[in-house]
Amino acid sequence: MENAKQVEVKVISKPQNMLKTVYTACRTCYSADSPINIYESEKAQDEDKMLKLITRVISSGHYSTIEHIQVSFAINNISRACSHQLVRHRHMSFSQKSQRYVKEKGQFDYIIPPTVESNPELTAKFNKFMEKISDFYQELVEAGVPAEDARFVLPNASVTSMVASLNLRELIHLANLRLCTRAQKEIRILVKKMCDELVKEEPWLKDYLVPKCERLGFCDEDKSCGRLPIKELALKGN
Amino acid sequence: MENAKQVEVKVISKPQNMLKTVYTACRTCYSADSPINIYESEKAQDEDKMLKLITRVISSGHYSTIEHIQVSFAINNISRACSHQLVRHRHMSFSQKSQRYVKEKGQFDYIIPPTVESNPELTAKFNKFMEKISDFYQELVEAGVPAEDARFVLPNASVTSMVASLNLRELIHLANLRLCTRAQKEIRILVKKMCDELVKEEPWLKDYLVPKCERLGFCDEDKSCGRLPIKELALKGN
Amino acid sequence: MENAKQVEVKVISKPQNMLKTVYTACRTCYSADSPINIYESEKAQDEDKMLKLITRVISSGHYSTIEHIQVSFAINNISRACSHQLVRHRHMSFSQKSQRYVKEKGQFDYIIPPTVESNPELTAKFNKFMEKISDFYQELVEAGVPAEDARFVLPNASVTSMVASLNLRELIHLANLRLCTRAQKEIRILVKKMCDELVKEEPWLKDYLVPKCERLGFCDEDKSCGRLPIKELALKGN
Amino acid sequence: MENAKQVEVKVISKPQNMLKTVYTACRTCYSADSPINIYESEKAQDEDKMLKLITRVISSGHYSTIEHIQVSFAINNISRACSHQLVRHRHMSFSQKSQRYVKEKGQFDYIIPPTVESNPELTAKFNKFMEKISDFYQELVEAGVPAEDARFVLPNASVTSMVASLNLRELIHLANLRLCTRAQKEIRILVKKMCDELVKEEPWLKDYLVPKCERLGFCDEDKSCGRLPIKELALKGN
Repeated sequence: MENAKQVEVKVISKPQNMLKTVYTACRTCYSADSPINIYESEKAQDEDKMLKLITRVISSGHYSTIEHIQVSFAINNISRACSHQLVRHRHMSFSQKSQRYVKEKGQFDYIIPPTVESNPELTAKFNKFMEKISDFYQELVEAGVPAEDARFVLPNASVTSMVASLNLRELIHLANLRLCTRAQKEIRILVKKMCDELVKEEPWLKDYLVPKCERLGFCDEDKSCGRLPIKELALKGN
Repeated sequence: MENAKQVEVKVISKPQNMLKTVYTACRTCYSADSPINIYESEKAQDEDKMLKLITRVISSGHYSTIEHIQVSFAINNISRACSHQLVRHRHMSFSQKSQRYVKEKGQFDYIIPPTVESNPELTAKFNKFMEKISDFYQELVEAGVPAEDARFVLPNASVTSMVASLNLRELIHLANLRLCTRAQKEIRILVKKMCDELVKEEPWLKDYLVPKCERLGFCDEDKSCGRLPIKELALKGN
Repeated sequence: MENAKQVEVKVISKPQNMLKTVYTACRTCYSADSPINIYESEKAQDEDKMLKLITRVISSGHYSTIEHIQVSFAINNISRACSHQLVRHRHMSFSQKSQRYVKEKGQFDYIIPPTVESNPELTAKFNKFMEKISDFYQELVEAGVPAEDARFVLPNASVTSMVASLNLRELIHLANLRLCTRAQKEIRILVKKMCDELVKEEPWLKDYLVPKCERLGFCDEDKSCGRLPIKELALKGN
Repeated sequence: MENAKQVEVKVISKPQNMLKTVYTACRTCYSADSPINIYESEKAQDEDKMLKLITRVISSGHYSTIEHIQVSFAINNISRACSHQLVRHRHMSFSQKSQRYVKEKGQFDYIIPPTVESNPELTAKFNKFMEKISDFYQELVEAGVPAEDARFVLPNASVTSMVASLNLRELIHLANLRLCTRAQKEIRILVKKMCDELVKEEPWLKDYLVPKCERLGFCDEDKSCGRLPIKELALKGN
């Protein structure tokens, strides 16, 4: 089915001087020198030295310095179920396609959930059912129901797209939560793609864009996937 | 149809000492006295004097003092279309019923959008279609699809419920935006109900829980409903 | 010196139904029942059962449900050095005494920092110096300099007071960071007092209002105080 | 006096594709096309068309689309009085020079407030007094008092520096509030400089970085400066 879609992600914006900006912020806290001088200094040319300082600061949990980096992603083809989860991250900025203002012209695009997709028979029924929904949507529109009301019949499966921006601190937090195997599969795949796209351009970020258990050294979930031991087992008896 | 629902709202929590807390905050900014003394002073017994100060402070736009008041609402029977709009208010706190963890046992409840509801024939078709969706949802569940994936077929119309908390500054902002006639009808009715429920207990809030045009004195929307004139017409030529 | 002050803290506001509100929020996420019914149910009378659910939810890191609780503190006699640190917590709401609008009438009150206070000779000099600053402040005021400019000579030591409100999630975060021995002593004492005052009224909160090392099971600071071992030593080799 | 300083501001970071990013965000909301296609389309090459769309969206108050733009400023030589005001903007990110970790080696730098600076005699006294404070600070340090405690004697006048980042929505809000003549002079000059530096690079922003009265069409302050009439006088009797 051509209307069954896969998520697409693209980094459309990031700061001109990512490393230099974070470096200047880190050094400003502990230096007698002015941030303007730090920014224009020779040290702010040396990528290796800057990276060394930045990774040390992030490792000790001083995340405020990486708020100065904001990244914008263009996200296409996620389900409304997934977008409803994503927009709960309140430190992010979103511009999402409006189902009120954008009328579906023909069959709407949708996401097939994984446990349906793995079953060809269910998938065929699912595709068929999406057609039925589309038919009823169009019937309502033709009867004069405006898009904002006709969309009441559209399913969680129907796709949406958005521009989403967040700073590095929030991206690490997002990765910590949503790369956890307890997160729903679709948002895990989305956030993994966001991280991968950014790491392609900024490889130094790789070590920080990980599930929370890797940051903690243990699993703090009620029901653990077993990837890392739970806290009581992970910690030496102290 | 018994599964076609109407929104319900109840104030389940607010501060013990709403007026006294805001009064203490307002006075703390401009007084040499300590906030503990202000709070325990005789003046903090005089409701009329307190109200007079508070309304003057709010009127001059110093909203930070009313952040000290947080109110919690239990909200029942809003559509997922409406909840998706509501959770975009990032200064609010939400605990929403999970479609991942709560499986629909029989026909799910839903909201009939206004332009459908006003047409008996369409309404009958709409009700019928909700049954069809429910049948397919149950078919997926019986085929072993977990709730978190079966919900992909559930429509925007299906109801959700939540506990939502926000401070007074954000409630005024919410009212300003969502009581505007440009907001979708369902969220306008919801926010109106939230305001009305609170005003029943705190009548002094009535003047502030209004659409933004009443606060501005003009309409700043691209397409105006005409309730108040647009800026250019509202302002004297100055 | 009577102008050398000690911090004072008082809980001036919290929700009417703290436990019941959090309980309703927790149950709403996982229950087919409506939040209004949950709130009015018999179970929401049983404090022990409610506490059991709430502590389980907090322990597994699902902090969003405790955002529904906001507490307001009246804080008196902290230094401007301390208040500058406190207002950096951006999820808090503050109403702080204004040095622009409140003119010092006589000797201003101040905080003696700990390493000065432990030395009687330095303390005497410190007190004397505070008098000199006060004299110069008054000289400027008498020369017609407005309070907002005269305050430029006032020291970090001079006291301030405020009403500060925050939700339970942020209070736990504040405790995690500011009860750490790496935090400056004055803010540690302030935050300890805020926690103690609240725990007097809500003893069940005691286990959560702790330094971050107790939550993590290890110390993640660059320079550890040794209270708990650093991550590498705390975790069994896995 | 060489230690009496003037504020310095420099834009050290902004997105690579400012216009294109906002344009993509605006169009995503209302278009059937995907944000990736929009971003890569030919229209996203046409600066004039993009600007036209963006200004229309901002004018109608839809500020969420400009949150995708974050700008970082290096700020040098503002007083601690000014920084205490600035950090109250909770949607901003700050990395500020630490008075705990950075020890003053000689005479600290400071800001002379305007009503002192305009009076040569008072200025001389002020400079002299800053020397006295510096002497006492150094005496404390030499007596073994650590920087974090010695700083208790440093005045509000002493300078600080920081890297401050904020998105365009917050920058407009900051300008609206802090360019108002009711704001303190130092922060007005600072924010004016921030705006001017950015407008040099992005002239299209000029019309939005204005005091709130220009946006409202009237003054809503309790005590008006008279620049624009108050609401009651500005609005035609409607």
